[in-house]
Amino acid sequence: MKARVTVTLKNGILDPQGKAIEGALKSLGVDGIASVRQGKVFDIELAGATDKAAAEAALKDAADKLLANTVIENYAIEVKG
Amino acid sequence: MKARVTVTLKNGILDPQGKAIEGALKSLGVDGIASVRQGKVFDIELAGATDKAAAEAALKDAADKLLANTVIENYAIEVKG
Repeated sequence: MKARVTVTLKNGILDPQGKAIEGALKSLGVDGIASVRQGKVFDIELAGATDKAAAEAALKDAADKLLANTVIENYAIEVKG
Repeated sequence: MKARVTVTLKNGILDPQGKAIEGALKSLGVDGIASVRQGKVFDIELAGATDKAAAEAALKDAADKLLANTVIENYAIEVKG
């Protein structure tokens, strides 16, 4: 079973990396970019998980324990059947 | 107009960071994780873009020029209305 966990900064948290990318895109002449915020994505393969609820529980555990810093980040879990 | 660009490593490209996360999850006792691969996500706000095709063209340009290393990475563009 495959899944994707997407971790993004919460609203209001400064993102200097995103700001740098935004500046770089402007100086490269890419038009129309108003703002950029960077996040992380984890493509996870689950072994032996047969039902979606169990998979989601394991991924929530993983995200809370390691993948995301829940003080400043949000995460979204997407299990792909 | 909002958009998301997701950059992931191509198949066959080694991902030591993902391997480290996999090991860490195992030692934290999170069960059922077979493999982890890490990627990046960019949440981009487009200024003044009115049609989807123009937005996609600008994002493709941004991904090719800066966001992804197309030798070892794939990217996916998703424009949100």
